[in-house]
Order: sequence, then C-alpha cells, then structure tokens
Amino acid sequence: MSVITLTTDFGLSDWFVGAMKGVILGINPAAQIVDITHQVPAGDIRAGGFALAACHQFFPQKTIHIAVIDPGVGSDRSAIAVQTKNHFFIGPDNGVLSPALEQNEIVAIHRLENRKFHSATVSRTFHGRDVFAPVAAHLSRGIAIRNLGSRATDRVHLRIPQAKTTRGRIEGEVLYIDRFGNAITNISKDQLDTFERGKVKVRVSVAVGKQTLPVDQFYEQVPAGHGLALIGSTNYLEIAVNGGNAARQFKLIPGSRIVLKEEKYPEV
Amino acid sequence: MSVITLTTDFGLSDWFVGAMKGVILGINPAAQIVDITHQVPAGDIRAGGFALAACHQFFPQKTIHIAVIDPGVGSDRSAIAVQTKNHFFIGPDNGVLSPALEQNEIVAIHRLENRKFHSATVSRTFHGRDVFAPVAAHLSRGIAIRNLGSRATDRVHLRIPQAKTTRGRIEGEVLYIDRFGNAITNISKDQLDTFERGKVKVRVSVAVGKQTLPVDQFYEQVPAGHGLALIGSTNYLEIAVNGGNAARQFKLIPGSRIVLKEEKYPEV
Amino acid sequence: MSVITLTTDFGLSDWFVGAMKGVILGINPAAQIVDITHQVPAGDIRAGGFALAACHQFFPQKTIHIAVIDPGVGSDRSAIAVQTKNHFFIGPDNGVLSPALEQNEIVAIHRLENRKFHSATVSRTFHGRDVFAPVAAHLSRGIAIRNLGSRATDRVHLRIPQAKTTRGRIEGEVLYIDRFGNAITNISKDQLDTFERGKVKVRVSVAVGKQTLPVDQFYEQVPAGHGLALIGSTNYLEIAVNGGNAARQFKLIPGSRIVLKEEKYPEV
Repeated sequence: MSVITLTTDFGLSDWFVGAMKGVILGINPAAQIVDITHQVPAGDIRAGGFALAACHQFFPQKTIHIAVIDPGVGSDRSAIAVQTKNHFFIGPDNGVLSPALEQNEIVAIHRLENRKFHSATVSRTFHGRDVFAPVAAHLSRGIAIRNLGSRATDRVHLRIPQAKTTRGRIEGEVLYIDRFGNAITNISKDQLDTFERGKVKVRVSVAVGKQTLPVDQFYEQVPAGHGLALIGSTNYLEIAVNGGNAARQFKLIPGSRIVLKEEKYPEV
Repeated sequence: MSVITLTTDFGLSDWFVGAMKGVILGINPAAQIVDITHQVPAGDIRAGGFALAACHQFFPQKTIHIAVIDPGVGSDRSAIAVQTKNHFFIGPDNGVLSPALEQNEIVAIHRLENRKFHSATVSRTFHGRDVFAPVAAHLSRGIAIRNLGSRATDRVHLRIPQAKTTRGRIEGEVLYIDRFGNAITNISKDQLDTFERGKVKVRVSVAVGKQTLPVDQFYEQVPAGHGLALIGSTNYLEIAVNGGNAARQFKLIPGSRIVLKEEKYPEV
Repeated sequence: MSVITLTTDFGLSDWFVGAMKGVILGINPAAQIVDITHQVPAGDIRAGGFALAACHQFFPQKTIHIAVIDPGVGSDRSAIAVQTKNHFFIGPDNGVLSPALEQNEIVAIHRLENRKFHSATVSRTFHGRDVFAPVAAHLSRGIAIRNLGSRATDRVHLRIPQAKTTRGRIEGEVLYIDRFGNAITNISKDQLDTFERGKVKVRVSVAVGKQTLPVDQFYEQVPAGHGLALIGSTNYLEIAVNGGNAARQFKLIPGSRIVLKEEKYPEV
C-alpha cells in the first residue's frame, strides 16, 4: 500500500481536496491518502513549504508528498516531481518543495510534461486535481519518475533565512506561527547547544517589548500565562506561553527578530 | 474496495463525522471513506448540493456519495438512495442531491424504509449516523438498492437558476463563493463560447460598482489585486482577483447578478 | 484491518496530525486511521473527553482510541493505555479518557513506560507523535498491552457534574456546545422519562432570561427561530433552536444551569 500526502491551501470548505482524492482513487484504489494540512494561508508558499518540511520525514519510505500552493497555476511556471533517497515530492516549481528538499538527498527531478499521466482534460486553474493528483497516483502504482517528463537539473530555491551565531549571541527570526500561537524560529538545537555547553544560562530577548524569557524544556516549567523559549518538536527554538498564545502576547509574526544572549548568573 | 464520500454541514469541531465513520467501518471494515467537505454552512442545501455536484464525477465508478444537509431531520421528510449509471447517492430527499443527480442518468430511486439496514436505535436528530451511514455501508458490501425500501418515481428538485443568453448578452448570477473568494457563476463554458466564436473580446460587467473585468484564462494574466473572469475548474465562469478575494472586493454573494456583454475593440 | 481514532486539540492548520499519521503508517501500513476531531479548544480536557465519550461506542470492537489534549506534556504527568471490554484507549493520564472510560468495563491500565514502543527520539512537547502514535500502531499490530509498561491500579478521574432529580424538578447544567450551537446538558433520557411517565408536559426553564422551552422530539416541531429542548443523539437533553444557534440566542456556555419543571396543563 502506497502513502500519498497532501499539503495545500485549498481549505476544507469546498470540494477541492475531495476532487483530488477521487482522482487518485480512480487510478490507484489502494492508495492510502493522508492530509498534512489544507489550511496553508492562500498562496503562502513559505508556510506550506515549512509544514511539509516539518513532517515529511515521519512518513514511511517511498511516500509520495504532493504540495499545491500554486498562485501561478495556469501560467508558464513549471511543475515537477522529485525523487529523493527516501521519498517523492510533487508540486509546482515555485519553491514550495524547497524546504523539504533541502533536508533530503535528491536523486532526480523531472518536469511533469507527459500528458499521458495527467487527466484527459486539464483546467487552467486546478492542477491539483488535473496534474498533481493523477501523477502521484501513477507514481504510487510504480510508474518510474523518468516517464513523467524531461529531466531537470535544478529547481526553484526558496531563500530560508539562517540564524547567525556570533560570540555570546545568536540572531534569528520567527519562521512560523502554529495553531497554539507558538512562534517557531530558525535557531536550531545545535546552535543553542553551543551556548549550553558553556554552562551559562541563556535568555531570549524578544525585540518587541524587550521581553526576556527563560529557555526551558517544557511548557509547565513556567507559571501559567508566562512566556518561555524551548526546543520544540521540530528541533528549533520556539517562543511559547504556558497555557497561552505567545504570538499574540509578544506580538510575534513570521520575520520577527529573536535574539539569544548569554547571561551569566551568580552561582547558587 | 468501495469508496464512500461524505458531504455534510456537521463541521469538524465535534464528533459527528467520526461517529458516521465508526458506523461505516463497523459494517464494512474495507470501506475507503473520503470527506468532500463538512463545512457546508448549517442547513444550506444549495451550497452542499453544489459541492457534491462539482466533484462527484471525479470518483471511481460505483462510489457511494452521502450528503447530509438535513435541517428537517426527524420530521416526515423522506430519505432516499439513488442509483445512477456510474454512482450511488444517499441523503434526505430535500433537494441536496438534486444538482448532482441532474448531471447523471438515474437508474432507480428507493426510499430508506427498511429498518434492517439502519442502526438498531435511530435517533430523531442524527440520521447521518443512524440511517445514511449504515445504508451506505451495506450498499458498499453489495446489498442491492431495491432492498432498502420501496421504489420512488421522483424526488425533490432544487431549482437551479439558469443563465440566459440573448444577442450580445448573457445574464447569470453567482451560485457559490469558494474559500479563495472566487465567485462561481451559472454561466457555462458553452454559453461563453458562443461569444468567443465571434472573435469579439468579452467583458464582465459586475453590477455592483459597475466593474468591468476582462475574461482571461488564468489568474496571473492580470496584475496582482486586479479582477478577472475566467472559466474555472467546474467549467463555469468565475469572478476572481489575482492574489485576492473577489467576493470581498466586488461585494459578491450567491445571487449577485453577473452580465456579460460583447464589446468590439479597435483592431490592433 | 485495525481502526485507530484520533481526538486532539492540534487543529488542522499545522502538520501535527499528519506527523502522527505518518508515524502510525510507518509501523502499521494497514492501519485505518479516523479523525474524531482535532478542534478541541486548546487544552480543554473536558471538551475532548466529552467528544470521545460521545462517539467511541460507534466504532468496531478493538478500535484503538488516542486522545491528546495534553497541556502538561513534558512534565511528569503519566501516560496510559487502557484496555476495556471492547476498545483500547491511549492518552495522557489527565482525565481526558475519563468520560469514555466511565462508560466501559476496564480490563487493564498500563503506563507507557517501555521506550521500545516509542519513537527513537522523544521530544518534550509532542508526545502525540513520539509516544501515543507509535504505541497505538504497535497495539494495532497485536502487541499485548502488558508489554507497554507497568500495570496501574487507577487513573485520573475527571469530575463530571451530575444532574439532580427531586420531586417535580431536575437541575442540571450544560456540558458541551456543538457546532450548531446546540447546548448538550447532563440531563439524561432516563431522568427525563421519570417525568414523562407521569404524562405531564415538561418545560425547560432556562435560567438566563427565564426562557421556557417546550420539550419536543425534533427541530422542526417549533417554528423557525424558536427554541426547544429535545433528547439529542447522545441520549442527553439538548437545548436547540430550529434553524438557529441556541447557545448564542440563550447565552448558554458549558456550566450554564438548566432546570426542568413539571407543569400541569389544562386537559384539551
């Protein structure tokens, strides 16, 4: 049984996701289809790419991941399938696959040119249904990726801002706000560890309001309503509030600057 | 493996959809259940019927489509199963199946009277769980539709407003607003083609604010934030905004009047 | 094929639910995963427990129910698996399983201590992905519950307020507001029946605004926009409005007091 995942900005109010699933099951009735999310903000390539990058690795080998955040649908933007060591990725070549691909060893990239693997009629506005779904279904039945179209040597790269470490200081930014209001940054566990190895307590200076938050390990280490920073389940630093919404409380949005500074404390 | 689709106004906050799936899997563990949408506005038969009509044809032959937008549940409204050439449809006989059925060749309509195929206890308020789910599961196991209850000769028809073509003019209206704010009208590709064959450029006069929009083929053909009309993935004319929300920008709701006029342009 | 259900407060905007499903399918590709709901208000153990209690019984025997409303994740709160006569339940030991367990005959409770059945790396903030999902997947493959960890003799009980019947009067409260605005109370069908047996008409006195509502059997028994009380699909009394939102109209929230009084009417 093959797993096909879906990451889109289609929402759940309409029939768009259902139509994609119908097309897939018409080609491969044994496909196991899993929704990652369909509530990526409309056209937000960065957020959709982040979501897929954050969870694709938890799926079995050979899972086929479709990402359709596709504001350029119908234009001459290219569409691609990418085979990596462990997975397949399918989507428009607009950067949405980029964050996930950067975590993987790419084996081959092919353009979705072969109409034989698309629906008989291809609309100008819904390639999720007419191109990406049927291509994924055919891949899941064992069609080789080289049959989908010509080989590409590269693909669109999405610039993902990197946190910078200088002596005694890490400067990063918020990349994603999750449903709880946790603000996930681009400061990695590894970067943070260079601090902790020095056995100095570390504090986050959130630029807005000059909040200083402790770095802890789980939410309930601070009193209810209080802020903290912790390494979240993505292995990146998150700003959170125990039982609350950090994005709202600290006015954080994607792009908000987060600075970590070493602070020496009097020994106890 | 049999596919059963669900279209309801139950939302996703409660356990209602989960309960339906539990009942189905209890009767047919091999059923493949696909959500079309559960976010039809509460009691909006027209919107639910539109969603099902827009995507049921993308599912494999013999798919069983359940639609539960059922404000009259518990009253003496009838419940039906309909076999068409390619699919089955199950729901209250209140018009919700009507838009889909009008696109299909009806083979038989039966009333859901035989309690043998309902749950042991049938509540007055949740026939989705107690009647429609078990009936669909039994159908998916191969029970013939004639066993479900007496044959009906007709069913409730939902009046769907038709666009009118007169010389040089098409008058239609908005039927559905999707999650992106695209306003889907009842003006079909065929109706529009009678214009395009004349090789005159066509413009949409949106009554509200007297906007005039170009008819194009995909969103990015107009600058970001600008409106356009295009044949959408349902094969009907949609009013859209590149990167924006047409319903909000042009104050469109279901029922808003849309007029297409031929306009001759100076030859280049 | 084994069914695994998910009840969480993870929402559908992020990748959290998708990650859990990926982990499950990696261990048991044949698992049939069903979402109950992911829109439990963040951290609302009571609401999540209510949802699971309201629908788990409709699933096939041996279904494995995971509930992750887990504000204490990462702290020393315990995590448990519970085998009952018909089902398995998995979650943090914080009361979220309590309402469902009280309807079932408990066979065994085990603590999720054996790391062999958790993911290789367990984060401090996402036990849904790293503990509950893999444990459920292993159970669904036939691992005996005793292998998961030491046997527990008890678990956290959530106090669920009981309605009180006195002569001619039942005092209860609202436990849950559903997506339609129906207010589900803790007054059971059995409690109501003690009244009806007396063949006196019963009316609900909603404290707020001193509304008096008829007890009826389905929504359309009162005119559109009017309130009523009826035994809902959970077998408890619900306050509803035909075609409307009772919670909004009568300002009801979980905890709102609902009083039933016998009222004699002149015989017709």
